[in-house]
Amino acid sequence: MLKAAHGAGAVAAAPFLRAAWGEDTPRAPIWIMRQAGRYLPEYRELKARSSFLEMVRTPELAAEITLQPIRRFPLDAAIIFSDIMTPLDALGVDIAFSPGPHVAEPLRSAAQIHALRAPDGPIAPFVGDALRLVRAELQPHVGLIGFAGAPLTLAAYLIEGSGSKEYEHFRAFLRAEPAALHVLLEKLTGVTIDYLKMQIAAGAQAVQLFDSWAGLHDLPTYRTFGIPYYRKILEALAGLGAARIFFALGAAHLTAAIAELPCEVVGVDWRTDLRAARAAFGARALQGNLDTAILYADAATLERETHAVLDAGRGGAHVFNLGHGIWPDASPDAVARLVDIVHGYER
Amino acid sequence: MLKAAHGAGAVAAAPFLRAAWGEDTPRAPIWIMRQAGRYLPEYRELKARSSFLEMVRTPELAAEITLQPIRRFPLDAAIIFSDIMTPLDALGVDIAFSPGPHVAEPLRSAAQIHALRAPDGPIAPFVGDALRLVRAELQPHVGLIGFAGAPLTLAAYLIEGSGSKEYEHFRAFLRAEPAALHVLLEKLTGVTIDYLKMQIAAGAQAVQLFDSWAGLHDLPTYRTFGIPYYRKILEALAGLGAARIFFALGAAHLTAAIAELPCEVVGVDWRTDLRAARAAFGARALQGNLDTAILYADAATLERETHAVLDAGRGGAHVFNLGHGIWPDASPDAVARLVDIVHGYER
Repeated sequence: MLKAAHGAGAVAAAPFLRAAWGEDTPRAPIWIMRQAGRYLPEYRELKARSSFLEMVRTPELAAEITLQPIRRFPLDAAIIFSDIMTPLDALGVDIAFSPGPHVAEPLRSAAQIHALRAPDGPIAPFVGDALRLVRAELQPHVGLIGFAGAPLTLAAYLIEGSGSKEYEHFRAFLRAEPAALHVLLEKLTGVTIDYLKMQIAAGAQAVQLFDSWAGLHDLPTYRTFGIPYYRKILEALAGLGAARIFFALGAAHLTAAIAELPCEVVGVDWRTDLRAARAAFGARALQGNLDTAILYADAATLERETHAVLDAGRGGAHVFNLGHGIWPDASPDAVARLVDIVHGYER
Repeated sequence: MLKAAHGAGAVAAAPFLRAAWGEDTPRAPIWIMRQAGRYLPEYRELKARSSFLEMVRTPELAAEITLQPIRRFPLDAAIIFSDIMTPLDALGVDIAFSPGPHVAEPLRSAAQIHALRAPDGPIAPFVGDALRLVRAELQPHVGLIGFAGAPLTLAAYLIEGSGSKEYEHFRAFLRAEPAALHVLLEKLTGVTIDYLKMQIAAGAQAVQLFDSWAGLHDLPTYRTFGIPYYRKILEALAGLGAARIFFALGAAHLTAAIAELPCEVVGVDWRTDLRAARAAFGARALQGNLDTAILYADAATLERETHAVLDAGRGGAHVFNLGHGIWPDASPDAVARLVDIVHGYER
């Protein structure tokens, strides 16, 4: 059923898309979360001349940054360079980056949430422009991935105001003002659906919903404030031809809820063995999950641990990835070795 | 067996100690992680006049702060006011607080680890002095708890240099220099054993080992770099008359390893249902685990959610606590209500 929904043609040849749509491919395709970014000298060179927001909002720059890792490594997919906060401009929220997001006026009251602007026109159309530029440059066997932040994670930043260890303000607000939080999540869900539909129309062949702060919540809370909105988003994207990837960080205790989501691929962080994930997520493709820190180990350890992940990923479709985003001081040489190891492994 | 190890007398009457040693008491005793601290106006008054380090290192101040929440609420245990980094002075490490710990020279090489000073004399004896002062003031039915940081969490701070979202430097070091990390963990284990023995000799009736950053690791990594050292510490404390509490944060995926540790009490964070914890940790007492954020909910929700935790804690010994430390802006009135609700609940 799922396979019937995506187009043939280029897709048939692109290993990333074959695996994403559930094919148990003879080799695992690979892409890397945050592959377009700070660990690449060519990125840092651009960054020295432009602000993060300029890079995100200028299609030529975003496209160039998206393509940088593809030129350097034989990766199986490109992911558009952007940020999960990008679409929130449509709600009239003012966000700066230094380098993490800082919300000028954190949402700390129901009144602020009710006063959010209704989106007017397309959401962050420059991301669509960048996707089209990338697709024009990309070879057909390389997949193109769009993404968005999951509403509960976006709400965490909007209410807390910036990154935080415990998200005290956000978690207190969730308990003190649950009705207002639902209003916010509903608004964010609408924006996210429009934003991801636009990305698919612009050429994204897969879209990943990132729930970076899922791990803050217990299961009943996640079922109340997370899952219903994620289901709505993922259902709205069904049948549009793009594979739907859901990735939650620190979510081993939320597996039962995540397993109910309608998506083709489940991303798994480094703390869950892929065999356990295979048992939990059934016929879906798995994506992940080498500990990012292994890139700092010696070459023998890198090979052994990468093989361990590839071994664990057998028995179904597997898209290789790190278990979380690559860090700014990672070595591009280690990334090159990693891609070689993955491509050299017969599943 | 475990019960035979602790003294009778005062212990027989102290609800916290009865539950900690495994008795299925008719009411759950309660204490709160970080109960001595910033959410209390009387603490902030002292803090305005002294630095954090002065407060930790001056027995009269540390004792006063330890007693502040006991004077205000009918809590069943006091926990000594200190910090998990306190004993590291014995290794010659220079640490400041602002408010989190900042290590002047983070350990980023094997050479730095090998050069750490060997402890010379008692570890942080002012903590022992503070414990004696507290015990002299404390009524017999109120338990007294000492604590230490788990070596892998201490190593995380020492290598990273300060708190961090991802602990990139620490996790990279673990992969790049595993042998050096083992040397560091061995040193930290020795210090922790001496430090906790000193606290028990000074009057601590229970000691909690805090593994605040357990959640960073996958299970094989935790079994390699965490569990062996924790077992060594907990075994060294056996038979000294103090109940051993092990608490790891974000550790739902590490349950199988934690269940093997020799301790009387397992602390559980808010993300694991106590029924599941009961199944995993067998006959041990459970400690926890109301989501700290519930203190910000309305009174009816606070009562309902507290009852839900108390319900889940039945079927064995239960020490009520939050699922993590209380936050600085929590309301003392909500804490008063919480203590009343817990004490009013017949198990």
